[in-house]
Amino acid sequence: MTTQALPLPAIADIFDAAARIAPHAHATPVLTSHALDAEAGASLHFKAEQLQRIGAFKFRGACNAVFSLDAAQAARGVVTHSSGNHGAALSLAAKLRGIPCHVVVPDGAVAAKLAAIEHYGAILHRCAPTIAAREASCAQVQADTGGSIVHPYTDPRVIAGQGTAALELLTAQPDLDALVVPLGGGGLAAGTALAMRALAPQCRLFLAEPIGAADGARSFARGALDLDMVPDTVCDGLRGTLGAINFDLLRAADAQVLTVDDARTIAAMRLLWTRTKQLVEPSSAIALAAVLAHPGHFAGRRVGIVLSGGNVDLDALPTLLARAA
Amino acid sequence: MTTQALPLPAIADIFDAAARIAPHAHATPVLTSHALDAEAGASLHFKAEQLQRIGAFKFRGACNAVFSLDAAQAARGVVTHSSGNHGAALSLAAKLRGIPCHVVVPDGAVAAKLAAIEHYGAILHRCAPTIAAREASCAQVQADTGGSIVHPYTDPRVIAGQGTAALELLTAQPDLDALVVPLGGGGLAAGTALAMRALAPQCRLFLAEPIGAADGARSFARGALDLDMVPDTVCDGLRGTLGAINFDLLRAADAQVLTVDDARTIAAMRLLWTRTKQLVEPSSAIALAAVLAHPGHFAGRRVGIVLSGGNVDLDALPTLLARAA
Repeated sequence: MTTQALPLPAIADIFDAAARIAPHAHATPVLTSHALDAEAGASLHFKAEQLQRIGAFKFRGACNAVFSLDAAQAARGVVTHSSGNHGAALSLAAKLRGIPCHVVVPDGAVAAKLAAIEHYGAILHRCAPTIAAREASCAQVQADTGGSIVHPYTDPRVIAGQGTAALELLTAQPDLDALVVPLGGGGLAAGTALAMRALAPQCRLFLAEPIGAADGARSFARGALDLDMVPDTVCDGLRGTLGAINFDLLRAADAQVLTVDDARTIAAMRLLWTRTKQLVEPSSAIALAAVLAHPGHFAGRRVGIVLSGGNVDLDALPTLLARAA
Repeated sequence: MTTQALPLPAIADIFDAAARIAPHAHATPVLTSHALDAEAGASLHFKAEQLQRIGAFKFRGACNAVFSLDAAQAARGVVTHSSGNHGAALSLAAKLRGIPCHVVVPDGAVAAKLAAIEHYGAILHRCAPTIAAREASCAQVQADTGGSIVHPYTDPRVIAGQGTAALELLTAQPDLDALVVPLGGGGLAAGTALAMRALAPQCRLFLAEPIGAADGARSFARGALDLDMVPDTVCDGLRGTLGAINFDLLRAADAQVLTVDDARTIAAMRLLWTRTKQLVEPSSAIALAAVLAHPGHFAGRRVGIVLSGGNVDLDALPTLLARAA
């Protein structure tokens, strides 16, 4: 998708986003668990975005982008590619504004996810499962409709929207020592970084990334984007590559990547299910897994963790749960 | 276990119980879901007892029983038989009061559940998996320790404690048209009946029971207890037979049993997981399944549903989820 010619987001954009999405998004609760605190040797504060609309934080960014459009832009609708939560989020946001939404999806995407996207009213456009086909298809749909492209994580409006989760968390718990969020494309991570620098500069930002999709860790180690990878992880929300402006915002916040293997992520997911009765997905549980795997950073500290979503494919559960053994 | 020589519980006992357990139990939230309302064609209010301590409503009754003991009784501890949530609940309640807890468990019980009971400090006493062996073992432990027996559902203190869930729900939502709770031994059901008659006499009480453990339905049809059954259901919390005082209290409330097959229960469980991200167990999901299976009773109504617990055995999940297919 064409990069948006929009300025870098700043903290004021997160405040604007919070006001813009307030009529539509849930202010999710912050959950605690004595059992998990004991497990981690730290005081954990979980921002429960599995309870957000569409079951993931992605609704925040999509909603902010859709409601940022002026009337003329809005009338032409929005366009994106995503076979996951961003597609569902943009579809619902567009429905709430009453405008068209076009989602380019690759052949072979999980049927249940496509059904969720269509459920909210988006028009699906199928393409071959390659980046070239996806870009071409997006460009074609944009040319045909004049719609606005909303990239899943490099769009500044999306980043500002995702930052509202950390804004709410830090408003409820201003004295956190550390924040831990999953790292995929970096939309949530960059939004969190912006909110944290403004509201809790004492806080350290940690990014939990799957070992099987560690372009972020390699990019930080090298000091420049290093995106060459073939993702191999159960964290289906974290297989994208880090965006350029996301990387810049994360470096400015002195963020640190912690890589986690899938077995630890699934074990952390089981722990969250058992102890909190919250159905979170692997791409969320990786943040707790990072805390448990790297106690040196967190012991005795007050730690905020963004549980990013709860869209688990129940039919794939048996295979998934077996990964922790 | 020997029946307690205690008077029948009344609404005043539920108010007393609420005050007694308040320092220890969670006041759980009432959850709603637009998606599930649409599915049911009704306005559903879920009392989220999966978020109660030990992950089930059972903590309320056990806590009330333990904190009802006078000092001399308490010093001798408590005794029960249970390989499930009641054992864990009594163990935690006894730990909070600082008194011994003895739990008789049958050989062959699920190791994870026994670990949960022991985790809170109870002493386990193993016996053969027959009712005779269980009764004998309980009597022996009582004789040896002088402890107080706390039956999982016929004890009036337990019934009053379980009634606090409905007390909270009806305080938050006084104008419900119907209440739906799972029916096993009848502790939660009888406590709910007492609270409802006093606080919401306009409300109808429905009891969701597995077809494979339908002693309650048969007893209501016959007008007398009819407990002869070999339970065959995935609802492991609902395999016990209806207690005599529980049956009396439920008849006095004009309760109606709705039987549900396991496939519908598992389908309702999947729906709850997917839509609310709450990990509830089959013995809880059966209440939603009853609402969906019997729309004539609920269409257009305001319905309270007690989600009784969330202690799912993750290792058994693949088998469980396959039951809905």
